[in-house]
Amino acid sequence: MRGFAQRSTVDEALAWLRPQWQRLEEEVVPVADAHDRVLARAIESGLDVPQFRRAMMDGFAVVASDTQGATAYNRLTLNVIGEAWPGRPFAGHVESGSAVKIMTGAPLPKGANAVLPVEETETSGDQVALLGEVPAEKHVGRVGEDIDAGSMVLAAGRCLRPQDLGVLSSIAVAQVPVVRRPRVRIVVTGNELLPAGSWPGPYEIVDANGPMLTALIERDGGEAVYPGIVPDDREAITAALTDDCDVVLVSGGSSVGQEDFVPLLLAEQGELAIHGIAMRPSSPAGMGRLGPRLVFLLPGNPVSCLCAYDFFAGPTIRALGGRSTDWPYLRKRLKLARKLVSVVGRVDYARVAINEDDEVEPLAISGASILSSTTRADGFVIVPGDSEGSGPGSEVEVFLYDR
Amino acid sequence: MRGFAQRSTVDEALAWLRPQWQRLEEEVVPVADAHDRVLARAIESGLDVPQFRRAMMDGFAVVASDTQGATAYNRLTLNVIGEAWPGRPFAGHVESGSAVKIMTGAPLPKGANAVLPVEETETSGDQVALLGEVPAEKHVGRVGEDIDAGSMVLAAGRCLRPQDLGVLSSIAVAQVPVVRRPRVRIVVTGNELLPAGSWPGPYEIVDANGPMLTALIERDGGEAVYPGIVPDDREAITAALTDDCDVVLVSGGSSVGQEDFVPLLLAEQGELAIHGIAMRPSSPAGMGRLGPRLVFLLPGNPVSCLCAYDFFAGPTIRALGGRSTDWPYLRKRLKLARKLVSVVGRVDYARVAINEDDEVEPLAISGASILSSTTRADGFVIVPGDSEGSGPGSEVEVFLYDR
Repeated sequence: MRGFAQRSTVDEALAWLRPQWQRLEEEVVPVADAHDRVLARAIESGLDVPQFRRAMMDGFAVVASDTQGATAYNRLTLNVIGEAWPGRPFAGHVESGSAVKIMTGAPLPKGANAVLPVEETETSGDQVALLGEVPAEKHVGRVGEDIDAGSMVLAAGRCLRPQDLGVLSSIAVAQVPVVRRPRVRIVVTGNELLPAGSWPGPYEIVDANGPMLTALIERDGGEAVYPGIVPDDREAITAALTDDCDVVLVSGGSSVGQEDFVPLLLAEQGELAIHGIAMRPSSPAGMGRLGPRLVFLLPGNPVSCLCAYDFFAGPTIRALGGRSTDWPYLRKRLKLARKLVSVVGRVDYARVAINEDDEVEPLAISGASILSSTTRADGFVIVPGDSEGSGPGSEVEVFLYDR
Repeated sequence: MRGFAQRSTVDEALAWLRPQWQRLEEEVVPVADAHDRVLARAIESGLDVPQFRRAMMDGFAVVASDTQGATAYNRLTLNVIGEAWPGRPFAGHVESGSAVKIMTGAPLPKGANAVLPVEETETSGDQVALLGEVPAEKHVGRVGEDIDAGSMVLAAGRCLRPQDLGVLSSIAVAQVPVVRRPRVRIVVTGNELLPAGSWPGPYEIVDANGPMLTALIERDGGEAVYPGIVPDDREAITAALTDDCDVVLVSGGSSVGQEDFVPLLLAEQGELAIHGIAMRPSSPAGMGRLGPRLVFLLPGNPVSCLCAYDFFAGPTIRALGGRSTDWPYLRKRLKLARKLVSVVGRVDYARVAINEDDEVEPLAISGASILSSTTRADGFVIVPGDSEGSGPGSEVEVFLYDR
């Protein structure tokens, strides 16, 4: 039971945090599991795609010079000596006077150097009549047309798109080197808390932060480790804090176990770098290290927990995973419908709604603990520490909760 | 081996498709699994949050009138008769002259009607000296302050945010009614194709569409069913097409099995509504129904496959899952650096890069089959059917691949 003697600023907290934002090492995953993962190094193609000259149209593989002078009124005729299909090439050789029926994507037979589209032919038995001419190489895709062997296909740090998986598959990359996802241990304590899905007794409340943090961590590319609420005793909390992970998020009630013990443990056995931040909500937030782990003290109140997560833990998790540390929300510049009040000396995370006129309405909220404010809100506005807020009609940047 | 007698327009294809966009039925999932799912119906709270009056500050629960006149220079003293913690309420009654030490979030003891913050007190043994006064109800959170029992908390159709899971958990919703995710069967055929992760022989190519479509379906909230490449025979394809699912995506090579058989099967046993569309790439795309399933014929060429997916299959999967049918890409209005050429009468899906000056560079691509163009591109521009394209300097809307 104490106040904070001296609060750090948000900038001071971020200044301590930024040097910790080191990308994790690489691991490999099958290409089918690589969507939305971050490439750990650049990928060069080990082969040409395609590896063979292919037909780009359905038609007939021919020696181009055989078609010279052919028109609908001056039909030339060739002998059809076989067929070429994708995966089933024609085994023989096309010589002058002969043609091979060919499907789009099929390997061009040896000897042929062009494809006459089917629309410009008429077949009759083993004969094909040519109604037009084609120059050499027409409708033939070259070796390496899509991707040349040795070329750089995807750069390191890229967050893989669906079509990137197609490309990786095409160049026979079976295992993709990606940045390991940070393991994030959620430590929720509080004797008053029941697990999600419970019905609360008269003085109990149900854990809101566990499910919320799990979803936030997954949004940010982390692997959430949340085996359940931790009993409010020192041994259990110490065990949870020293779990095998990269980041620990501690969210407690306001009970003694969390409020005093975790900062103490950090200060004694690791580093309690920041405790108490000039912001609203989330002023009791803190951060530090314990062994190899970055530890975030998130206030138990769910709105403060969300706010402290998004300011500090979120960008850290994204940075460890090789992702952008920028806010993961769309932004919109809009005018204020009403005054947005703040206090100089602290950063405000103000939940706002966007009204029918596309104006920003700050939500009037009595307590910081109103989680439903973050579901009624369309987003939030960050009021910097040197601002008293803004008057109606002034433009603010809104971060939108929905993507 | 044939052309398309008459191509439908993109608008005609969408006009056939839109009436099929019926949201699927509801299912329930545990709240911990509900992130990014779509609520099937509105959620009302079955309880007040909190269910009890609680302290909003650390301090002492008092009878407010006992504090009247207290200042640092006129200290009043109360007997401390116990403690109240979150989850561990004080069992007795606070009467005039007594106080209970209380932590933020703890239930306010009976008899007390205000909390004097710890900063305005000094404790000495069983006595607490008051350095200030508090009015009744100060620093006390009311029953239902966050959520009132019976109030509507989340609307039907909402895509659930991380904080929504916190709210649902708080109001003891264990199972969340969400729209069922559409089951989407991927049917990839082609004798020339090897499964992802293989090294291709001289005339083989590795399946790019399976991994790409799987990722696209997951992006759009569907459940991808992809047991592997389907052998190119009628029985195997028929079995795959009649799998237990809501949507079938057929992507074949250009072999006879796919090109002729699937449209025929649809025409005979279901409906082949559209086959051949005036667009580039993807002109061989088609769609129809087979029993309860919507079937999409996606060209085997990966760029066409991506394009046809995004125009037709993607919005269908999102609509069935209760999501927006709008393009799932960020948009940016930018100026063209060079001419973007198109042809009247067809819709173009033009891959573009954004250069250092934030201008749009159409990618010069010889063939539509260049999948790597979609990885080199930053996004695409849609050129409508009535346009010949646009000149340098004119503004176009770019859909960005990265989110």
